[in-house]
Amino acid sequence: VNSVVSLITDFGLTEPFVGLVKAQLLARHPGARIVDLTHGIPPFSTEAAAFWIERSCRYFPPGSLHLVIVDPGVGTDRRILTVELDGQTYLGPDNGVLGPLAGTAGARVRAVDMGSLAGALSSGDLAVGDLGLPCEDWVRPGWLKPQRVGASIHGRVILIDSFGNCFSNIDEESLVKHEIESVNFGTHRLSWVRTYGERPAGSAVALVNAFGVVEAACVEGNAARSLGLAAGAAVEVRLGRATAAAKGRDAKESTDS
Amino acid sequence: VNSVVSLITDFGLTEPFVGLVKAQLLARHPGARIVDLTHGIPPFSTEAAAFWIERSCRYFPPGSLHLVIVDPGVGTDRRILTVELDGQTYLGPDNGVLGPLAGTAGARVRAVDMGSLAGALSSGDLAVGDLGLPCEDWVRPGWLKPQRVGASIHGRVILIDSFGNCFSNIDEESLVKHEIESVNFGTHRLSWVRTYGERPAGSAVALVNAFGVVEAACVEGNAARSLGLAAGAAVEVRLGRATAAAKGRDAKESTDS
Amino acid sequence: VNSVVSLITDFGLTEPFVGLVKAQLLARHPGARIVDLTHGIPPFSTEAAAFWIERSCRYFPPGSLHLVIVDPGVGTDRRILTVELDGQTYLGPDNGVLGPLAGTAGARVRAVDMGSLAGALSSGDLAVGDLGLPCEDWVRPGWLKPQRVGASIHGRVILIDSFGNCFSNIDEESLVKHEIESVNFGTHRLSWVRTYGERPAGSAVALVNAFGVVEAACVEGNAARSLGLAAGAAVEVRLGRATAAAKGRDAKESTDS
Repeated sequence: VNSVVSLITDFGLTEPFVGLVKAQLLARHPGARIVDLTHGIPPFSTEAAAFWIERSCRYFPPGSLHLVIVDPGVGTDRRILTVELDGQTYLGPDNGVLGPLAGTAGARVRAVDMGSLAGALSSGDLAVGDLGLPCEDWVRPGWLKPQRVGASIHGRVILIDSFGNCFSNIDEESLVKHEIESVNFGTHRLSWVRTYGERPAGSAVALVNAFGVVEAACVEGNAARSLGLAAGAAVEVRLGRATAAAKGRDAKESTDS
Repeated sequence: VNSVVSLITDFGLTEPFVGLVKAQLLARHPGARIVDLTHGIPPFSTEAAAFWIERSCRYFPPGSLHLVIVDPGVGTDRRILTVELDGQTYLGPDNGVLGPLAGTAGARVRAVDMGSLAGALSSGDLAVGDLGLPCEDWVRPGWLKPQRVGASIHGRVILIDSFGNCFSNIDEESLVKHEIESVNFGTHRLSWVRTYGERPAGSAVALVNAFGVVEAACVEGNAARSLGLAAGAAVEVRLGRATAAAKGRDAKESTDS
Repeated sequence: VNSVVSLITDFGLTEPFVGLVKAQLLARHPGARIVDLTHGIPPFSTEAAAFWIERSCRYFPPGSLHLVIVDPGVGTDRRILTVELDGQTYLGPDNGVLGPLAGTAGARVRAVDMGSLAGALSSGDLAVGDLGLPCEDWVRPGWLKPQRVGASIHGRVILIDSFGNCFSNIDEESLVKHEIESVNFGTHRLSWVRTYGERPAGSAVALVNAFGVVEAACVEGNAARSLGLAAGAAVEVRLGRATAAAKGRDAKESTDS
């Protein structure tokens, strides 16, 4: 355990809400080294938060603690979960934001006893094993996984970044070993490319982005605006024939999915 | 005294102005653990800054230092004050931003000798008692307190948050022991509720918010926009009869106010 | 060498890109004390970044490290440079962002060997001398210096701040010892003033700003908007006769330029 504590919220930076969290955290855990992961999660967007947490927090030093405060149901009696995975610890509401992590092989999930949590924070020693009992019935959000129907993968736009790029929940692992026959975002069939640079400015394209998911982008433009896409829009990737390199393992694969 | 130093400014985060302050603070006080309370105070809004400082800084660990840089008169020969209150130390211009703290029972207010301040920062030991002489004539801003006229409390909108909620300067202490007969924000008479959830989406309501003041809000909407309210708008709370629980102390109360 | 590491990027604060950089930095260099200089550099604006770095980083404690991540060519095989100057160390792409520093007398410039960099970061001891070989052929951006033609200095608008003030690349050193005959920003001839306060609200003026360069401003207004100026706009300062105080050195000066 190190003393790095990351914060991920939908509070924005206009009011001092983030500052208030830091104040209370430092009052209880004076040695905390607080790092802002982001406070720009769209309000109440558990999907965007879940995506960024899973894709970002793995880069922190082992033993880091990640506090997730994105909760449309705040003030209700929502449970708090801890998830331990690959040497990182996550703390957040049981509303799906921790779903992608909790559902990963090797994750240990616990429902937090709030009294134990306050005590652990006060002592500066967040021994997660003492915070609560193992938990199996955490919220599995519907948007976690795209659906495979025959040769098609059906997903959704889960977030739009500040450049207008539309991130889907279809990750690159589901594409490997196959050629891509077509990609649709909403009603738009998009050209499949490896990098933005393959098409001239203004072109709408689809590609696997730096965070490992299928994205709609507009070269030097704003895809969400020019294609009229919003979070929730349907995404379909139609897989073509297996690629040569993958042929050997392909029979097994088609049985699995 | 711990090493936590919070910053509260109206600098925004687009230019490196906040970074420059941190640079100079770290150059003089290498051990400082800087926490951004907020840099999103509306430009020159001493009212919003005063509100947030008083409501937020109490949550920091004892011995924290809070630097307030919100000053329409920057560059003039404005005095600098320190306020010590409840184990926290505040440093800021004598323009009213520290008024709510300075006016609290138990606060010690000093006018800063700038040479002493530079020396103290250099040594990392901000012994506030050595920074200047006690001061009585600090600026008492007119907006500090609402006015009580008969059964009515007359206040103003002092800030609008990024969700469009309109915070008044009428705090919950002035309401206890009475029923609420009516609440007006500008020309709008609003329904008095305990929580947003009591009314359907789109309703304009008034309530005591999480920061302890009377607020106009629009359920799942933007009250400032839908009611046409801006900072400075008049707010009137008309008190009804004393509540049963408070009857005993009520005679004394009406004499005091 | 202290442990302060400043970050200057054009990433903005909406997505967790800055958080990702901090995560990886802390994973390799656990003792780093990270300070955000700014993440609000306009996307890909190497000019704005170069200006702010040169004007801001000097205020950090000696031995600070400044990481500059503003690079339109990211992903290409752009070289990484280190610049050592006045006890500060800068690390960034060879695209001109470090040009004003690299071109300053006394600066030591090196092209970084990336393997050495990773090792140095891991050990927490960034001995810059071991990171690479001295380098002479770093990118000298065209916008670095204004041109002197007779009595005129021809420069450009290099950045517009969030108040609409238009910063030029003409610094105050090039003006001293002369009166100012005229100042043009684009097609607008502006009044030359010492402070905003000399003209009524709404006036467009030119002055030397707090960061030491000639700026177009609109008193209590937005100069970029009201004058229709954008980054890149032409700026001309026409120098008048030498001021009395400077007469002695003036003959030499006119030979130099």
